[in-house]
Amino acid sequence: MIDRQNIESEFKNLQDRICKGLENLDGLGRFRQDLWHREKGGGGRTRIIQSQHIEKGGVNFSAVMGDMPERISKALGLGPNRFFATGVSIVLHARNPHVPIIHMNVRYFETSEGPWWFGGGIDMTPHYIIDKDAAQFHRSLKETCDKYDHAWYPEFKKWADDYFYLKHRNETRGIGGIFFDRMDSKRASKDRLFDFVIDVGDSFLDCYSEVFNKYSDKAYTEREKEWQLHRRGRYVEFNLVWDKGTRFGLDTGGNIESILMSLPPECRWTYSYDYNKIELDTLNKLKKEIDWLSRTAE
Amino acid sequence: MIDRQNIESEFKNLQDRICKGLENLDGLGRFRQDLWHREKGGGGRTRIIQSQHIEKGGVNFSAVMGDMPERISKALGLGPNRFFATGVSIVLHARNPHVPIIHMNVRYFETSEGPWWFGGGIDMTPHYIIDKDAAQFHRSLKETCDKYDHAWYPEFKKWADDYFYLKHRNETRGIGGIFFDRMDSKRASKDRLFDFVIDVGDSFLDCYSEVFNKYSDKAYTEREKEWQLHRRGRYVEFNLVWDKGTRFGLDTGGNIESILMSLPPECRWTYSYDYNKIELDTLNKLKKEIDWLSRTAE
Repeated sequence: MIDRQNIESEFKNLQDRICKGLENLDGLGRFRQDLWHREKGGGGRTRIIQSQHIEKGGVNFSAVMGDMPERISKALGLGPNRFFATGVSIVLHARNPHVPIIHMNVRYFETSEGPWWFGGGIDMTPHYIIDKDAAQFHRSLKETCDKYDHAWYPEFKKWADDYFYLKHRNETRGIGGIFFDRMDSKRASKDRLFDFVIDVGDSFLDCYSEVFNKYSDKAYTEREKEWQLHRRGRYVEFNLVWDKGTRFGLDTGGNIESILMSLPPECRWTYSYDYNKIELDTLNKLKKEIDWLSRTAE
Repeated sequence: MIDRQNIESEFKNLQDRICKGLENLDGLGRFRQDLWHREKGGGGRTRIIQSQHIEKGGVNFSAVMGDMPERISKALGLGPNRFFATGVSIVLHARNPHVPIIHMNVRYFETSEGPWWFGGGIDMTPHYIIDKDAAQFHRSLKETCDKYDHAWYPEFKKWADDYFYLKHRNETRGIGGIFFDRMDSKRASKDRLFDFVIDVGDSFLDCYSEVFNKYSDKAYTEREKEWQLHRRGRYVEFNLVWDKGTRFGLDTGGNIESILMSLPPECRWTYSYDYNKIELDTLNKLKKEIDWLSRTAE
């Protein structure tokens, strides 16, 4: 059976594959790497690209360990014990407003008392939601899930709708995707779950290449750029107000530059933004429970 | 003795005076007003200026009332009861990076069971901290406080240092100012406290005019504009992550456009921003417990 060393090492390989793939895709930019160490144990490899096409992107790996904070032990119903957590986390902001913002995360957590689980997800935030592209994205995620369990895609799709949600605006962040957490032996064997999260991780590059190749050279207007900056503001609102991972990092004093790499290179807040028809069309699609798969024919 | 009608009415007058003063100061822009009503009682007058000089500014009045949410009653050690809350709240983002961001708020709260209090504050966030200007700002706030109680300025200055603080970066938001809350009859009579908060409100325009007139026509470089956009990112981080008023509004579903008028018109997050000497100088002054008053001579 795989152990935490295997997982950590495969997550590093996943980060390497994705960075290489993204450099090929972008064509111009190169990742810079910053290594960081955590005083209480572990550290990470933060990799950032700031390029002509991918205006700002981060592909981060980390593996941290140590004594579990008491309130987390309590919440898990455990006594004093140690934890180990490793993961890969990605957010990409392209310069072209026709290319969606994308996010992917896979993670593994274990405690010295025995409990362990995997978590992760992928979600996409197009500045302009195009049904056909959304359908293709969801179909691709469904295919990955279906290889393991046909119940997973519908469950994880709903989970993403509920998680990537701006409660204060009653809006989803984008077209959702999949989100899952606490995946343990009740779901499948450790080896099989690990294969699944690696598959999710590797599906990211396909999903992103699809929309990147389609739109990164498409001409755009000033208004379209403005709308992108406006929509990025909502991304900031989600990450700083609602995202549990970001809040946890800020509360507990993680590596700030690495945690906040998800924030856009540039964004705007305009009071009472005056939406045009195509922008309103996207706003109207920021809703939970849209069956994107069925939108292929439109 | 003044009652809540007097307070509400004087807060409206304060909003009128400030808007008029700011229109004169800006010279070009005019406020637009949006009235809003709260289903459960009350409403407000949101006033926004988006101009050549004041790139984005909001001067908001609100007065809301209704049944107190149970968890607030409990926190206050009260049974079921009704509340009334009114206030004026301002944030201004100038286009010129040499003009500081400024914030002012005065508020009054009362419950049907008896307890009432005033709160408020002013704080300034210069993109470039200049000791002489910071000293003058604090001197002006001290003068206002000293008219009522010589103990207040030092107490409220410390309170501002602690409140306007980005814990995740170990940085203050700017040069602070004054912050106070729960000011009730243990502090002074209701009439006297009311005079104080109106004085604080009226001191705002003087404080802002001082720096605005000094810097709004000063030439600036692209780098200075970039630094402003970078510093505004920190302002967003404070408001969305730490500001209790903003969080409370977002959690309880207030008027979103009005709550988030404090966010800048445009801002940036750059991974590992490469600070120059003058920017580092400002960063080094984002600390608690700086005695700005003593910096006049420099």
